Amino acid sequence: MSESTTNTTSVAILGSTGSIGCNSLRVIESLTTTRMRVVALAAGTNVERLADQIAAHLPEVVSVDTETAAHDLRALLFARDIDLPRIVVGEAGLIEVASHPQADCVISATVGAVGFVPTLKALELGKRVALANKETLVMAGELMTEAARKSGAELLPVDSEHNALHQCLRGERHEEVRRIILTASGGPFRTRNRAEMKLASVAEAMQHPTWNMGAKITIDSATLMNKGLEVIEAHWLFGFGPEKIDILVHPESVVHSMIEMIDGSVISQMGITDMRHAIQYALTYPERHSCQLPPLDLTAVSGLHFEAPDLDRFPCIALAYRALSEGGTLPAAMNAANEVAVSAFLNERICLTEIPEVIETVMNGHSNQPAKDIKTILNADHDARQAAVATIEKLANAAV
Amino acid sequence: MSESTTNTTSVAILGSTGSIGCNSLRVIESLTTTRMRVVALAAGTNVERLADQIAAHLPEVVSVDTETAAHDLRALLFARDIDLPRIVVGEAGLIEVASHPQADCVISATVGAVGFVPTLKALELGKRVALANKETLVMAGELMTEAARKSGAELLPVDSEHNALHQCLRGERHEEVRRIILTASGGPFRTRNRAEMKLASVAEAMQHPTWNMGAKITIDSATLMNKGLEVIEAHWLFGFGPEKIDILVHPESVVHSMIEMIDGSVISQMGITDMRHAIQYALTYPERHSCQLPPLDLTAVSGLHFEAPDLDRFPCIALAYRALSEGGTLPAAMNAANEVAVSAFLNERICLTEIPEVIETVMNGHSNQPAKDIKTILNADHDARQAAVATIEKLANAAV
Repeated sequence: MSESTTNTTSVAILGSTGSIGCNSLRVIESLTTTRMRVVALAAGTNVERLADQIAAHLPEVVSVDTETAAHDLRALLFARDIDLPRIVVGEAGLIEVASHPQADCVISATVGAVGFVPTLKALELGKRVALANKETLVMAGELMTEAARKSGAELLPVDSEHNALHQCLRGERHEEVRRIILTASGGPFRTRNRAEMKLASVAEAMQHPTWNMGAKITIDSATLMNKGLEVIEAHWLFGFGPEKIDILVHPESVVHSMIEMIDGSVISQMGITDMRHAIQYALTYPERHSCQLPPLDLTAVSGLHFEAPDLDRFPCIALAYRALSEGGTLPAAMNAANEVAVSAFLNERICLTEIPEVIETVMNGHSNQPAKDIKTILNADHDARQAAVATIEKLANAAV
Repeated sequence: MSESTTNTTSVAILGSTGSIGCNSLRVIESLTTTRMRVVALAAGTNVERLADQIAAHLPEVVSVDTETAAHDLRALLFARDIDLPRIVVGEAGLIEVASHPQADCVISATVGAVGFVPTLKALELGKRVALANKETLVMAGELMTEAARKSGAELLPVDSEHNALHQCLRGERHEEVRRIILTASGGPFRTRNRAEMKLASVAEAMQHPTWNMGAKITIDSATLMNKGLEVIEAHWLFGFGPEKIDILVHPESVVHSMIEMIDGSVISQMGITDMRHAIQYALTYPERHSCQLPPLDLTAVSGLHFEAPDLDRFPCIALAYRALSEGGTLPAAMNAANEVAVSAFLNERICLTEIPEVIETVMNGHSNQPAKDIKTILNADHDARQAAVATIEKLANAAV
């Protein structure tokens, strides 16, 4: 094996045309002190962007959502005179990308529950998983972490908060941590009252104050369910119970998260709000490599502020703590209900404050059971989606 | 050896009746999850406080500055019916305390150059040194770190900034650090102009905005020479060159210092402004033990602010960077001139803005040479003190 081969990390990306996927490719292109090679890409239906990515990175396998998208992609590549990779489709395609034999690292960046089975597969195969898809851990944290433990796979968070926690915890002993503190920007409704939130438009909810992200996570940030999901994610990534996981609103998003040790010392990680930092960290850990992004200039920040989250205006937080405490399939049901409710809000079928109502109704009706296998979890996910659709139907009818 | 013996750390304290010394004893008294025993104490002339400490901790050896103080201490202990420890005097006494055969850890907390030789002795003997006396590292960083390297002694900083850096660096690789950033409160004159600083009274200069400390370090904080000394201290503790050590003014003193990695990530350590945190960390490292002090409440802080230091109003910073860059005995000369000048300011013989003038005059007149041995360094210290006294004399006469 030549030296250049041993020094190259091969990467597969699930969700390559999304926000994290595109940023991952930019990171891979920008690295000058280590080499990464893209061997497989999975996208949804954005075949134009996928074609550009294929032209730039020459992966061996690409996956798309549907046969139609596969057809369009073939036509596009043919027209642009780009060599065809192997093209696969649907969940089987995602799994093939996630289990590509040459991939050392899989970036799991699909949105929502669709990434669950492929990501689990990558962990079972012992691959490093750079996880941007927090929903998979929320649904099936026990299965995922158990699979990683058995195979020796590393699970590295790309979420900026968990990536920050991973950095803070590097030199520390688990039993000497008093609590971990997830920071939250507070979203676009941090200073709005309940009545204003009820009337919020999709456009207003999409105005995230500090991060530029996809639609689902941006709405989750507006309801603070994103922070709730992160509490559950943090539990599975780092092994702390709900009583040791706190949330602190920090509007400037400069401190990405922090840990408080038993001796009172607080270690924090700060940076600019660019996901490429967390992606690069997850790809190159335990090494750090130089980065062309502008450094954090604390003198340019008008001040760093912190406040407790308002649990009344943001009931999603309490729902997530409840799901974590009760465990079993309840987090999967909560996550599914949230996905459906967010989608209904984006389609203007319910208002923003009805998102937690839908979730709570679904959680209250959920018959909880141990999350022991994929089938049980996927059933809970499926049933919760149906229950959410029915709940939204009732709300929409009541509103007419 | 019984279990309780193996679990007990024996401690000697140089400067036990000062601010750090007293706080060290409070830490030792407060620890509930590990045991520390005080075997030797060195104080100056505050025999009343020393007698209380002897009564509480029953050390085997105590040292005081003078025969008179030793006499007074004996009388006091006799009157209070406290068993006499072995009482030793002067620099020989300090050395005996620092080299006490049972001491695992020596807390070096004397003020100024007097702690240099005893602290070096402790390092040569392979003892852990918890260093609060930054002047010793400024004078003789190479000798001290070389002695620690040879004996395998650990040198742990008690200065809150360096203690913070030590914590930030725990999980990081030295070569992946882009720069270390010492935070500075900015002192009582952060927002004052040069004319106001010239007229500042001793009482005004003693008003430190965030930390409650001894007189010398409080004046050093008013001129920012304290930060200059810390730059040199950081160089010797962590091995970074002056180009990798920066200063950031942070008036709230919540972030005690930070490091910026080559990938742009910034790791910081935060806490309340109580020296007991840093002392406990240095005593118990690599373990952390629970601490009764109130936790940091970031929601109670009105905001964290950062600004670049004003090098024009605070010329001591540039003097310290110059001393570090030129090396040799120049840092020792700078430190000696500063001690004399601060003392002259406290005695109202010169004004605050004349402190850097005195130091610069002494530095310009210093004939620099390699800081290879104690004698050379102590000669430089001695000559610089004489030069500082002469310079102050001239300034005082000119002012009359």
